[in-house]
Amino acid sequence: MSALLESYVAGSWRRATDDGTPVLDAATDEEVVRISATGIDRAAMVDHARSVGGPAVRALTFHERAGLLKALGQHLSGVKDELYALSARTGATRRDSLVDVDGGIGTLFAYASKGRRELPNDTVVLDGAPEPLGRGGTFVGQHVYTSRPGVAVQINAFNFPVWGLLEKLAPAFLAGLPTIVKPASQTAYVTERVVRHIVDSGLLPEGSLQLLCGSPEGLLEALTVQDSVAFTGSASTAEKLRRHDAVVRGGVRLGVEADSLNCSILGPDVTAEDPEFDLFVKGVVTEMTVKAGQKCTAIRRALVPAPMADAVTEAITARLAKVTVGDPTDDAVRMGALVSLAQRDEVRRAVKALLASSDVVFGDPEHVDVVGADATAGAFMAPILLRARPGADEPHDVEPFGPVCTVMTYDGLDDAVGLAARGRGSLVGSLVTHDPDVARTVTLGLAPWHGRILVLDRDSAAESTGHGSPLPPLVHGGPGRAGGGEELGGARGVLAHMQRTALQGSPDLLTAVTGTWAPGAGRTESDVHPFRKSLAELAVGDTIRSARRTVSPDDIARFAELTGDTFYAHTDPEAAAANPLFGGIVAHGYLVVSLAAGLFVDPDPGPVLANFGVDHLRFLTPVKAGDDIAVTLTVKQITPRSSADYGEVRWDALVTNADGDPVATYDVLTLVAKTWPQEA
Amino acid sequence: MSALLESYVAGSWRRATDDGTPVLDAATDEEVVRISATGIDRAAMVDHARSVGGPAVRALTFHERAGLLKALGQHLSGVKDELYALSARTGATRRDSLVDVDGGIGTLFAYASKGRRELPNDTVVLDGAPEPLGRGGTFVGQHVYTSRPGVAVQINAFNFPVWGLLEKLAPAFLAGLPTIVKPASQTAYVTERVVRHIVDSGLLPEGSLQLLCGSPEGLLEALTVQDSVAFTGSASTAEKLRRHDAVVRGGVRLGVEADSLNCSILGPDVTAEDPEFDLFVKGVVTEMTVKAGQKCTAIRRALVPAPMADAVTEAITARLAKVTVGDPTDDAVRMGALVSLAQRDEVRRAVKALLASSDVVFGDPEHVDVVGADATAGAFMAPILLRARPGADEPHDVEPFGPVCTVMTYDGLDDAVGLAARGRGSLVGSLVTHDPDVARTVTLGLAPWHGRILVLDRDSAAESTGHGSPLPPLVHGGPGRAGGGEELGGARGVLAHMQRTALQGSPDLLTAVTGTWAPGAGRTESDVHPFRKSLAELAVGDTIRSARRTVSPDDIARFAELTGDTFYAHTDPEAAAANPLFGGIVAHGYLVVSLAAGLFVDPDPGPVLANFGVDHLRFLTPVKAGDDIAVTLTVKQITPRSSADYGEVRWDALVTNADGDPVATYDVLTLVAKTWPQEA
Repeated sequence: MSALLESYVAGSWRRATDDGTPVLDAATDEEVVRISATGIDRAAMVDHARSVGGPAVRALTFHERAGLLKALGQHLSGVKDELYALSARTGATRRDSLVDVDGGIGTLFAYASKGRRELPNDTVVLDGAPEPLGRGGTFVGQHVYTSRPGVAVQINAFNFPVWGLLEKLAPAFLAGLPTIVKPASQTAYVTERVVRHIVDSGLLPEGSLQLLCGSPEGLLEALTVQDSVAFTGSASTAEKLRRHDAVVRGGVRLGVEADSLNCSILGPDVTAEDPEFDLFVKGVVTEMTVKAGQKCTAIRRALVPAPMADAVTEAITARLAKVTVGDPTDDAVRMGALVSLAQRDEVRRAVKALLASSDVVFGDPEHVDVVGADATAGAFMAPILLRARPGADEPHDVEPFGPVCTVMTYDGLDDAVGLAARGRGSLVGSLVTHDPDVARTVTLGLAPWHGRILVLDRDSAAESTGHGSPLPPLVHGGPGRAGGGEELGGARGVLAHMQRTALQGSPDLLTAVTGTWAPGAGRTESDVHPFRKSLAELAVGDTIRSARRTVSPDDIARFAELTGDTFYAHTDPEAAAANPLFGGIVAHGYLVVSLAAGLFVDPDPGPVLANFGVDHLRFLTPVKAGDDIAVTLTVKQITPRSSADYGEVRWDALVTNADGDPVATYDVLTLVAKTWPQEA
Repeated sequence: MSALLESYVAGSWRRATDDGTPVLDAATDEEVVRISATGIDRAAMVDHARSVGGPAVRALTFHERAGLLKALGQHLSGVKDELYALSARTGATRRDSLVDVDGGIGTLFAYASKGRRELPNDTVVLDGAPEPLGRGGTFVGQHVYTSRPGVAVQINAFNFPVWGLLEKLAPAFLAGLPTIVKPASQTAYVTERVVRHIVDSGLLPEGSLQLLCGSPEGLLEALTVQDSVAFTGSASTAEKLRRHDAVVRGGVRLGVEADSLNCSILGPDVTAEDPEFDLFVKGVVTEMTVKAGQKCTAIRRALVPAPMADAVTEAITARLAKVTVGDPTDDAVRMGALVSLAQRDEVRRAVKALLASSDVVFGDPEHVDVVGADATAGAFMAPILLRARPGADEPHDVEPFGPVCTVMTYDGLDDAVGLAARGRGSLVGSLVTHDPDVARTVTLGLAPWHGRILVLDRDSAAESTGHGSPLPPLVHGGPGRAGGGEELGGARGVLAHMQRTALQGSPDLLTAVTGTWAPGAGRTESDVHPFRKSLAELAVGDTIRSARRTVSPDDIARFAELTGDTFYAHTDPEAAAANPLFGGIVAHGYLVVSLAAGLFVDPDPGPVLANFGVDHLRFLTPVKAGDDIAVTLTVKQITPRSSADYGEVRWDALVTNADGDPVATYDVLTLVAKTWPQEA
């Protein structure tokens, strides 16, 4: 008897109290491990996540969490070969494993980078600008995202045991949530190995990741309002979860990614001679064969203009004829095994259902020639290309979760969009076209039905990551049949794990709560120019109010001459008078902000190292020759950089004229040394 | 027999085929109308919305839809008095009606304004910046929001028959969705009157609003993937909806706002002499009495430090003693009737349940003195203040949907947060404090449990809109028991009705799809400077590539002298050499963008009227004395303003040095005349 997979529970590895059931090698049918969760205390896992893991993760800032994800990615990069070898036992070729293993590790790196670039070095995220709620400015709104004191449960599909874990872990961890992962039993041994490496690394705080191998029964019952379940898998299991009391009555948030009947559309502009023709054909064949078609994002429906159907079918067939099926560890093999014999049976049943309205163009569902393996032992299957007869319904309803695709024809762009929509919501669709009008019409028609759309042509082909690949910066998930969930998408995936709350109050109290200076809040003036303060000394609200300066006609003339910006509103009194917005000579906007800098800058070397940018600059009142201006500069936000001896300071800049009218508002972005003088 | 309420179905008013059931006046128990939906064809309503209303709304841009909402608000403002009179029959005083009627109309105006300011004059919304997906820049991602070809169904609560309709209609309409409203039967006659006025106005496209008076049975069955249901009401009905096949299997999106056990917390810093003490007491009394406490946002739990409990209870009691109950049309009456005798019975039952662990401090649930009305006929009830005994559970579980509040004590900030969390998710919480540290600790503790938090003190009191008022710019909805939904929140409420999709493709194709120039897309250069083109002539991608210009040491010196910006990095070679980022004299960032303007500006009067701002300016490479720079300016986005003879043009600006390195990137915002020369 092989080993029994352990679960990682409340800080230690635990064995089930029975012998479990065997998990078999996809290609050889040999037993790999046994699996059971009998006797594993699910409620204790949830308690541990809540009481130990959650507080430890939330004690870190987003940047600190991002740093740990990066270190984790580096650590796991060192054990790839071990994971590839295990992965092969699930039927995956080396190419398939790259998608799973390298794709998963890449997601850690991507989130490490997004976390540092798009989230603050803090634990609260501001959402949008302050909302004035009263005319006097004493009552203001501000939306914030905060971390939930809950648990993120993953219930994953069998097809991506590494990527599935890591693509859900990274955003949840960044959001401050501890994770409990429940992998699909069929490939849980791969996930278990990754979790073991993560635990052994000691990189993540204890309690931030636990593993449940085997049945999740009892796990959902322990969840409440602040917890979430992210499920990837079949529509039927998704239904059960949606009806679960924890979701219906308990307030548990449920996100679902279900398999969908994704389509790829060949544009009507594409001829057999165009490069887009080959791109379409290659895309279909790739999606049929990678992971033996066991991908929720695979192309199930190939929609082509009727006149192109024969050419497309022939081209796909020609490519499929070259696909070798067999031992996934053999480099000559293009397509490995399905994950199990049971899975192959399911795919065969689906193909049978599809044959009600389609004909086989390529492949025999019941037979395949196999390279380097025992065709009777492993879950091997030939790629199957079907062609739908006119009016076929089944291709829009039946999902063969294997190397199967159906070619269908459409008549006009509206028909193409209509057929795509018959999938009732998909994770991804692709359109292969080089015609901008086709791209616009079809893409906007498809968009409400899809979470992601690839518009492919010769220009992007070399860099395109293809129809089937979810990418960390882009949302993954689709409406309707695809489950209605949304994962990844950069910071979006992090915020989806957090609670958005509208705060209302005085600017001072909102500043106290958020740590970011709200317009109207108190300004702290002192004898020390804030440019003389290091990051350690600077505080939100620190302010410099400048002296006033008159903008003379000569200033404007000299600025025009120096910069070459001789726009008539600055140089020609008569023409400027005719301008409906100015009615006379006005100072250049760039002159106004340049003079403002002259008024607030402290010239000597100091902790302020550089001005690296400006945001949201708006010119609100024209400055006429002879007008006085002054500027008030206030520290709005301080963001130390983890990996540098300086940080970013965002300043609120307000330029006013002698009447007190706002002339210009903007944010000035500077780099400020953490200490001054800087330490060696 | 009174009139039978009609439904507005597929363009005409329809009567049920039976006589319906009576709806009674809250204060007099007289029959107001009868209601029934027997024989009303719900599927026809959904069909009509899909085939007629949806396409008509989606043919308009966001700005056009916003314009219609504004006109609708103006139209309904003219019939307020009629609505107040009807509203009184639901038990509402004039003050209550203001919240419902004026609040609803105000939401139309707020969304009209938000739609024009925060959404493009287009039908597609870009979400976030383009995401580079390959090093070569030929493969890019862009998230977009598009309108769903579906139907927005509202199922509303009885308490806000006008606001409930309009606060859901405005964001859905802006999002391009037709609405079917199903008001609560008890107050449907008020909603019906509003819908009749909207229909009679002819302002909204036919099919964009339909009304179903009576049972919604059969309505959900007609909904599919692109449709949504927004429900406001009880947790038990919400459960039924969550288990409905349309939601579990059909992909219908369900948003829920359920009543919640909202709390208000008195900060430990507040003494009986502080203005915050009165603010707290007034807040509790207001929330108990407005709409006779029939508000999902009302304060059900008043949490106070133990030493303050007596003082708080006394102060609330003293105010409640002055509350007159009776005829809602009587100006001397502070609190009207509950909506029905059945509702009063429910509240009495809830009070009985609460008495298991609380004592009555004020009011008699079974008796009330009534002004100007028949106490035996109307659904009148005294305001009831309870005080919980230590360790009470019921106040966290039992919701009295009427004029009832329970005072509870807490010991320390963690305890206050913990007690608030025992409500298992609330729409709103409030904290009354003048201490910034208390504000931060408690607010961040409450945030994951709340959709909205009011932090109230003396500074914001005069302008505060109070604990119980959802506001159009702020999200309304809360986690867990509160339903997990999110409405309003300005543009957030609009986008929540749309589908987010990640697009991938070449910059050219993405530009074609979105109508916004994507970095890397083609640039169109011609002999005509784009500043000489009117809005009508300008096209996305139009570009000017400037000549090169050397930035001389003299330019930098003169600029420093003119502007007064003598920062050492621009003026002191030795000090500048020591700067870790520059290593020598560099040009001012503001000089670089000013010179760039000098390079791209066309000086003569023309259609470009003004530069009104700059966004996302980043200085990427320092410009040293002697460096050459050039600028490329490309039209990124064109937004005509509906109410002016000009529009906004956003230009992509890229300043490069002689090596081709990017020196600065930013968006230049200009106002451009729609035609040139401008028509009289």
